[in-house]
Amino acid sequence: MNPPTPTHYDTLEKLWRRIHHLDHLQSIASWDQAANMPTKGNEARAAALAEISTCIHELLTAPNVETLLSQAAQETLAPPQKGNLREMKRVWQIRNALPASLVRRKDLAESRCEHAWRIQRPANDWQGFLVNFEEVLSCSREEADRLSQALGVSKYDAMMNKYEPGLTTVAVDRLFGELKTWLPGLIQEVTKRQIQEVTIQPQGPFEPQIQKVLCEQVMRLLGFDFEAGRLDVSTHPFCGGVPEDVRMTTRFTSHEFITSLFGTIHETGHGRYEQNRPREWLGQPASNARSMAIHESQSLFFEMQLGCHPGFLANLSPLIIEAFGYQKAFEPQALAQLLTRVKPGLIRVDADEVTYPAHIMLRYDIERQLIEGDIEAADIPSLWDAHMSSLLALDTRDNFKDGPLQDVHWPMGLFGYFPCYSMGAMYAAQWFASIEKAIPNVHTDIHNGNLQPIWEWLNDNIWEKASFWPTVELAQKASGSELDLRYFKRHLYKRYLGETL
Amino acid sequence: MNPPTPTHYDTLEKLWRRIHHLDHLQSIASWDQAANMPTKGNEARAAALAEISTCIHELLTAPNVETLLSQAAQETLAPPQKGNLREMKRVWQIRNALPASLVRRKDLAESRCEHAWRIQRPANDWQGFLVNFEEVLSCSREEADRLSQALGVSKYDAMMNKYEPGLTTVAVDRLFGELKTWLPGLIQEVTKRQIQEVTIQPQGPFEPQIQKVLCEQVMRLLGFDFEAGRLDVSTHPFCGGVPEDVRMTTRFTSHEFITSLFGTIHETGHGRYEQNRPREWLGQPASNARSMAIHESQSLFFEMQLGCHPGFLANLSPLIIEAFGYQKAFEPQALAQLLTRVKPGLIRVDADEVTYPAHIMLRYDIERQLIEGDIEAADIPSLWDAHMSSLLALDTRDNFKDGPLQDVHWPMGLFGYFPCYSMGAMYAAQWFASIEKAIPNVHTDIHNGNLQPIWEWLNDNIWEKASFWPTVELAQKASGSELDLRYFKRHLYKRYLGETL
Repeated sequence: MNPPTPTHYDTLEKLWRRIHHLDHLQSIASWDQAANMPTKGNEARAAALAEISTCIHELLTAPNVETLLSQAAQETLAPPQKGNLREMKRVWQIRNALPASLVRRKDLAESRCEHAWRIQRPANDWQGFLVNFEEVLSCSREEADRLSQALGVSKYDAMMNKYEPGLTTVAVDRLFGELKTWLPGLIQEVTKRQIQEVTIQPQGPFEPQIQKVLCEQVMRLLGFDFEAGRLDVSTHPFCGGVPEDVRMTTRFTSHEFITSLFGTIHETGHGRYEQNRPREWLGQPASNARSMAIHESQSLFFEMQLGCHPGFLANLSPLIIEAFGYQKAFEPQALAQLLTRVKPGLIRVDADEVTYPAHIMLRYDIERQLIEGDIEAADIPSLWDAHMSSLLALDTRDNFKDGPLQDVHWPMGLFGYFPCYSMGAMYAAQWFASIEKAIPNVHTDIHNGNLQPIWEWLNDNIWEKASFWPTVELAQKASGSELDLRYFKRHLYKRYLGETL
Repeated sequence: MNPPTPTHYDTLEKLWRRIHHLDHLQSIASWDQAANMPTKGNEARAAALAEISTCIHELLTAPNVETLLSQAAQETLAPPQKGNLREMKRVWQIRNALPASLVRRKDLAESRCEHAWRIQRPANDWQGFLVNFEEVLSCSREEADRLSQALGVSKYDAMMNKYEPGLTTVAVDRLFGELKTWLPGLIQEVTKRQIQEVTIQPQGPFEPQIQKVLCEQVMRLLGFDFEAGRLDVSTHPFCGGVPEDVRMTTRFTSHEFITSLFGTIHETGHGRYEQNRPREWLGQPASNARSMAIHESQSLFFEMQLGCHPGFLANLSPLIIEAFGYQKAFEPQALAQLLTRVKPGLIRVDADEVTYPAHIMLRYDIERQLIEGDIEAADIPSLWDAHMSSLLALDTRDNFKDGPLQDVHWPMGLFGYFPCYSMGAMYAAQWFASIEKAIPNVHTDIHNGNLQPIWEWLNDNIWEKASFWPTVELAQKASGSELDLRYFKRHLYKRYLGETL
């Protein structure tokens, strides 16, 4: 008997496995670039990474792929295969929307702008930045235009869809519109109440080597599999590598340890999502993490929902004391107070979870108008200032370095990503609410260090579901509804004002 | 004006640049596999590495390459381009000689044999080993047969040519035939003389962290550029990475430090050769290291000619004392005595420089007959024993684990490589003799820690010459003659018997 002729769908699966293997090398080489590579290796590495991008691009834009996609759609497929084909098509659409000349122009503009930005930011040089940034914006607008045509959605929606498929300006406007009605009031109330509180600051120095051991201990507590991943040091912490070998990075400074520890807890959320993507589907796009908002929902679940939970802090406290010796600041109650300080500030990455969404609403409003062509790059500072003033009562006039120059996203052409951060925080609150229903003793479990039931819920509802369903369906199946802001609101009111809504 | 039409040669250069970038990722991912990768990452890494091998193979075996090679040969080329074209053709010939089915069968057989060998060696299980090894040998014989036809040389010569282009059995027979006339006598005489000597053993433990710092200091002393490379730890020390970013590895054990330190000195020789390949030619095969014998000539120059030189030991001694505190064993004279102990032993990698060639002559004789089909795998043990008995007066009967099971080369199908080790030692002695002529004060320079003149000689004569000339021409231009055993003989007689031949 002859083996059965492979279907068109089979041929696509085979193509994606090839791409997956090349992606693997790209991920590991990129991690190495950040974690190990000496300076003189950079040029050769950049060229090698560009070459493999070209290989992947050639495979995905080969003329036969379009035909295969439409032929496979006519074949009889099981539901997971249908989901996989949907994801293949999505990847293919985005990849094929841009001509190679635009990709090259965009890469060049972004790398130039980002490189100059590293100097321009500390120098507060907005005018210098504008020169390069206008070309980045021009490329991103062309990208948005082409993606918009390919995906049949508006320009900014098309940009958001790269990170969060199906997300619309309508949905974000609804969420952020609602948020704006109560967030400024909540911030005011919480800061007023916290004025009387005295927080106890941990006293350093904190030896980086000991911090690393502590971080690894906490990663173990959080179920990270060290046989399938590592923790290393890089200038900008990230979670990279591949599902079978997750490469997390952090950075240490000896005068402070909370940032690095909670950064690690955050990245561990990303890491466990990656480590638990469905094994038998690895290599196929259906096995990918659902989206960036869902990815951020995992990291923020780990950092904010679980990491700052009083029961978790009761387990964390002895580890910190074991690492650095006893300090009053390391008591669970003192840690909780330290971790829930709310203070409007200029810098997004330093923001607490209550003021954080304000930073996102501001960026969303500005970048949407930039991409749609309603404003120009030169209009950013005044809009920035207006938002900071109305949302956080802060004055940022002429302070570009702590204003629109603070993030790497825009110089890199990463328009459409910012909403994912806040939606991640909202989803995380929604997951936690579902977990409270599914596991009645969850608070006691956390206190007792029994996190297994939580891992099982996350695995069953998020991790192993990967990209088999669209985000809305994933959320509905996991929590009974699509993203609902009320869970986040309840979480904040409960944690910061002790109020049950 | 239109840009000039690219020549066929230009098209080939472009192809090789692509391959070079893919090689880069392969090297870094292989290094990472040895130095960083957690266990569960192995399967995915192996698949990713196999995929990139396939990509490289597809590029090199595309039907148009043969045509381009012959068309380029008709074009007007400058001498370095001619050398480059010669190397391109060589790579292409070797790559195209084997059908994909044989490559797959060979990979499978070798990986199965090597994997089982890890257990079979400690278990002294020769019969178990034979089962897998016979398939490895069968694949290698087919490879030799096909390479022989492609290159127009004998089967074993074809296998040697993968590592040392142009090397012939005739040449090796001449060298080893000559060596056999005086080496056993020299070994006897040296061991007799050393019987009376008392060597002082360093007393441990030696903290691995301190060993690493010492190794890095010595690498700096030897000119290794840490902005273009690193030192890490792996089970089997090697020198990998890319010329712009050389990744050396070593391993540490706390009861002993000399092996690791001199292993590092050895790998630094490989590393500097790689770091100093001609920059403007990187990506083209003419920029590759000339051959494996020449590569070994650099590592053995660093380890044996320079590393064990009394003047170098005078500089090394204070660094060792600074690292571990004073011991009499760390005095230059004591180190020299320790490093020049000659003792026939069963294990090649533990052998001193005097008995080492005996191990190679034995392997050469056996593997040549294996590949030519004059003997079978089952004949190895008796031949092994006969050689060990006549060359080193050692009995290895029934001791397979310290006999033919000791090396990874044969289970991996690496036939034809062994001669490169001894030829490397011979070339190293020849280079040093040339350096003595070119730099009259070289011994004083070494004593004074002024190694710059040596680096300049190596750079001008070996490193920057890369593969522009065949090995014989390289040797002639560097030292006035092709490989001449007399230099090695003089070196050994002088160092071990104090005799000037």
